[in-house]
Amino acid sequence: MGLSGSLYRHLQKISGKLYVTREKEELLCYSYDATGASFLPDAIIFPGSENEVARILRLASKEKLIVVPRGAGSGMTGGSVPVKGGLVMVTSRMNKIFDVDENNFLVRVQPGVIVSDIHKNVEEKGLFYPPDPASSSVCTIGGNIGECAGGPRAVKYGVTRDYVLGLRAVLPSGEIIQTGVSTAKGVAGYDLTRLIVGSEGTLAVVTEITLKLLRKPETIKTMAVFFDSMQKAAKTVSGIMKDATVPRCVEYLDASCLDIVKDSLSFDLPEGSKAMLILELDGDINSVEKDAENIKKLCFFHGALDVLVAKDQTQAQKLWDARKTLSQVLYKIANNKINEDIVVPIDKIPDMVKVIQEIQRTSGLKVVSFGHAGDGNIHCNIMYNKTDKNESERAEKAVDELFNATLSLGGTITGEHGVGMTKLKYLPLEIGATQIELMKGIKKVFDPQNILNPGKIFH
Amino acid sequence: MGLSGSLYRHLQKISGKLYVTREKEELLCYSYDATGASFLPDAIIFPGSENEVARILRLASKEKLIVVPRGAGSGMTGGSVPVKGGLVMVTSRMNKIFDVDENNFLVRVQPGVIVSDIHKNVEEKGLFYPPDPASSSVCTIGGNIGECAGGPRAVKYGVTRDYVLGLRAVLPSGEIIQTGVSTAKGVAGYDLTRLIVGSEGTLAVVTEITLKLLRKPETIKTMAVFFDSMQKAAKTVSGIMKDATVPRCVEYLDASCLDIVKDSLSFDLPEGSKAMLILELDGDINSVEKDAENIKKLCFFHGALDVLVAKDQTQAQKLWDARKTLSQVLYKIANNKINEDIVVPIDKIPDMVKVIQEIQRTSGLKVVSFGHAGDGNIHCNIMYNKTDKNESERAEKAVDELFNATLSLGGTITGEHGVGMTKLKYLPLEIGATQIELMKGIKKVFDPQNILNPGKIFH
Repeated sequence: MGLSGSLYRHLQKISGKLYVTREKEELLCYSYDATGASFLPDAIIFPGSENEVARILRLASKEKLIVVPRGAGSGMTGGSVPVKGGLVMVTSRMNKIFDVDENNFLVRVQPGVIVSDIHKNVEEKGLFYPPDPASSSVCTIGGNIGECAGGPRAVKYGVTRDYVLGLRAVLPSGEIIQTGVSTAKGVAGYDLTRLIVGSEGTLAVVTEITLKLLRKPETIKTMAVFFDSMQKAAKTVSGIMKDATVPRCVEYLDASCLDIVKDSLSFDLPEGSKAMLILELDGDINSVEKDAENIKKLCFFHGALDVLVAKDQTQAQKLWDARKTLSQVLYKIANNKINEDIVVPIDKIPDMVKVIQEIQRTSGLKVVSFGHAGDGNIHCNIMYNKTDKNESERAEKAVDELFNATLSLGGTITGEHGVGMTKLKYLPLEIGATQIELMKGIKKVFDPQNILNPGKIFH
Repeated sequence: MGLSGSLYRHLQKISGKLYVTREKEELLCYSYDATGASFLPDAIIFPGSENEVARILRLASKEKLIVVPRGAGSGMTGGSVPVKGGLVMVTSRMNKIFDVDENNFLVRVQPGVIVSDIHKNVEEKGLFYPPDPASSSVCTIGGNIGECAGGPRAVKYGVTRDYVLGLRAVLPSGEIIQTGVSTAKGVAGYDLTRLIVGSEGTLAVVTEITLKLLRKPETIKTMAVFFDSMQKAAKTVSGIMKDATVPRCVEYLDASCLDIVKDSLSFDLPEGSKAMLILELDGDINSVEKDAENIKKLCFFHGALDVLVAKDQTQAQKLWDARKTLSQVLYKIANNKINEDIVVPIDKIPDMVKVIQEIQRTSGLKVVSFGHAGDGNIHCNIMYNKTDKNESERAEKAVDELFNATLSLGGTITGEHGVGMTKLKYLPLEIGATQIELMKGIKKVFDPQNILNPGKIFH
């Protein structure tokens, strides 16, 4: 296709010459996300305001130009990858935190704000924004809205969806809408807010977000728990979820993960460690102390080798750094990975662990898993070498087996990464044809010309 | 219009003669809800299964027969009133609680289950379903899904939407869909679950609901706090929400409400009481004790006349019974009422109280207010005599003023009652034309013939 010279000049007029580019190197930089899949866009634009977003989309609508909204490109399913070319619209310049409303527990932000900047900003005022995906130091709140991001604290606090009260957004036509409320409750008409959350930038470009905040917990306690088998760790998770106060994080790392991260921890692993849980509690000091004691007992009851409580914030941070960089450092094992974020009911985690071990055996590939065990959300990484045709085929087959097992255990193929381009072909495994037709119908209502992030979620 | 004889016989074939009727008395019984507005349907059907619902809708679709789904008819905005006639589909026979899953904290239920039956059922197993609208002893979970019901505990625990993980539902075409997940997380495609929640039975007939449960709190503490002015009560609410652990309920009753309920309480009101807050805390025993002390201090700091802590469950229950029957007993004041459930940001409650007092003064009508002050949700009741033309006009004008003030304070015209038929003409005050067009587009995707509960939310 390409972009005509006059269209390109028109875009320059809207956002300024400095903020539109079609330099080859730049196109390359915005061609991929964390999946590694790469498709070149025709141009990139960095709008500075909602008004610019509206003008760009109005023009795009008139010219049938494809527009792909993009935050930091840290997505795991190709949500922001321009699979059909067109104009990539990067929100990085729209990164204002408008106001932290301490009386009403809200904050209004632009989509390009980095999630950890929200954390810092509101925590300084004694407030708390719970969602904290592993990529929070780089990813944008706009991207989090697009994918309905989760992260380790979701087990206690829920996901992005649960904190979005209202949105401002621009439709593909260039029209601006305002959805939801600035209050704790609101049911005026269909819930367009939560329809846009998780729609992966296919319905509208979000330009402003009103987030609900909580009070910052009085104290946090972080523990590392070690097991000599993955099965014991999995059973402990079910036990904790059933019999203890819900921790704010219940993460697990399998033996392969432990191998990779052990040197970056501030303590030695107990001998024979084959699995680790990271548990984190928060709340008022007395309750947390009591709950921590109770959980410690439960862990030993379920066969833990040892329970280490982080002595201070630095030690806890090291644990989290190790966990959060896992997704990147896995490339030490193989050149490529397929990262799937399946979810199963909590009491099916031990079954799922068995399935994963079996898939590793039959595929002959390394399958590494870690994730948010407390809500049944397992990040399962199938490691392989893309250039090896046989390995690629085995990896594909492993994914099929993984998804089939997940669904037969009553789970879902994606807990927080979305469908994007990589799970598009698998969506019909989980969702009936009638539902997919409804989704397509909704897409058409918002985007009759299919110019906004086409080729995602469904064909 | 009416229903042809052959169509009626066909309906009898589907659900059995016992479960279809067009007796005048029966039609009358299903012609109204808690608004008092009454429109006669052409017939009523009581399907016994999802399969019957699907067959009825398939037939309705073929014959362009209007179908109005209905739970207990306790709605506050006419959501289940058959404004255009047709077939009222009552879910009362579909009232099974399928299974309480104690390991995964879920329960699967049919739409006709009474909400308080869910409470009893899961609490026996040590679990907890937080949403608890005032009508919980009669209203159905299907109706709660339709309107996204809230209730007093929403201030801490959120609303119906926050507990619906997945749905089974029948489209107007008769096709059955399954949305959402049985897991804590899931982002596979657009969020049809939360689109259907709060859609007031206009998109699909829900036939099965998977609800998320919590662990039952260890203890509950209920307090009644008295003030000599509504302003002080309102400021105390803002103070508590800002500086204390969030109680699970923060209800308020104004002077008129106190007058009505005072004889049914198990204690005497402190002299000079013009407003009361009902505060309820839950959690583990130590925290609740500590938090209660803290809140007590805050109340006195903000000028409370007295704080009474319920001695036992019976005393607490009396307090709640008084609060929960308010909506009915208000008819002691006047024959008719317009009940609006506006929401304003928490720190705007004192302003809203002033507005309501001003509206009472200018309209010359009694305006009684009570509600969920903790989340800014005020049930504002304009009492009048319908047969008096002048009073009716003043009441209408009072509603206009109330809504305009609400919106200018950054609020919403409905926190939990929905739009239905009574707020339909006010929706455009809050929501732009573009958004309403999107909603209409979505309606058309689900219900191209407009046979499912037409005349609600928007024209």
